[in-house]
Amino acid sequence: MDDDITYMRMALEEAKTAMARDEVPIGAVLVHCETGEIVSKNGNRTRELYDPSAHAEILVIREGCAHDEAQRIPDYDLYVTLEPCAMCAGAISFARIRRLVIGAQDPKGGGILHGGQFFEQKTCHHRPVVISGVLEEACGQILKDFFKAKRKTL
Amino acid sequence: MDDDITYMRMALEEAKTAMARDEVPIGAVLVHCETGEIVSKNGNRTRELYDPSAHAEILVIREGCAHDEAQRIPDYDLYVTLEPCAMCAGAISFARIRRLVIGAQDPKGGGILHGGQFFEQKTCHHRPVVISGVLEEACGQILKDFFKAKRKTL
Repeated sequence: MDDDITYMRMALEEAKTAMARDEVPIGAVLVHCETGEIVSKNGNRTRELYDPSAHAEILVIREGCAHDEAQRIPDYDLYVTLEPCAMCAGAISFARIRRLVIGAQDPKGGGILHGGQFFEQKTCHHRPVVISGVLEEACGQILKDFFKAKRKTL
Repeated sequence: MDDDITYMRMALEEAKTAMARDEVPIGAVLVHCETGEIVSKNGNRTRELYDPSAHAEILVIREGCAHDEAQRIPDYDLYVTLEPCAMCAGAISFARIRRLVIGAQDPKGGGILHGGQFFEQKTCHHRPVVISGVLEEACGQILKDFFKAKRKTL
């Protein structure tokens, strides 16, 4: 659990960096489950890259897979500040991520605990261990602050 | 409908090219709804790129968005030989694709007509027009042939 908090703090730092880039402040960290090596960390970059798939989770999975030269990376754990969407849930499953640690839940757009709950479907062929609620308040607050500021500028 | 068949034939050609690369034979074509310009066409490249997100649909959406320098491309229609999975359903929605034309259905891994049926969820904030069954038999047969040949080599 101490490790979970440590890695989630790093993911939260990535979320803050994303906010500074005017991206939705969500961060992710990909960690080797045995060595603790951080193979990738990133925040959302959909604006910067003109890429709607450039969520933090997809970016770290892509970097982790490239690092291992593999489509499947079952020895990695993924830390993400917000509950992944359906798109990222699919990518997490395809990559065979071992353990998914979530900060805040996302009732409006989440695809793990909400919506289609991808990991509960028969069409899902790998379900990671899922932990939710690590640094939940801080991970949710940064998003609230971001959207509150956005609304003010409208 | 004639146009749908024309574009699906192109997607099927991409699936065939994918098979020649030993990738799962699924192809996609992204077409501007007014000009008919094909801004991108591709097949699966998950093996080649060591990227579990490199489904045909994601590749053409990323290329189309890069082409338009936009996260959202509401003037494009997507043709794909197999029903998209949950991951691609999410990307299609985020990209605001206008119309999704599907070849064969995918009961085992589809995320539009099967599984979490993402477009039917409250967590889905854009649903394209969906057409299914264009060149259905040919689009399904190439996958059957691919996996039959794979099983023989096991």
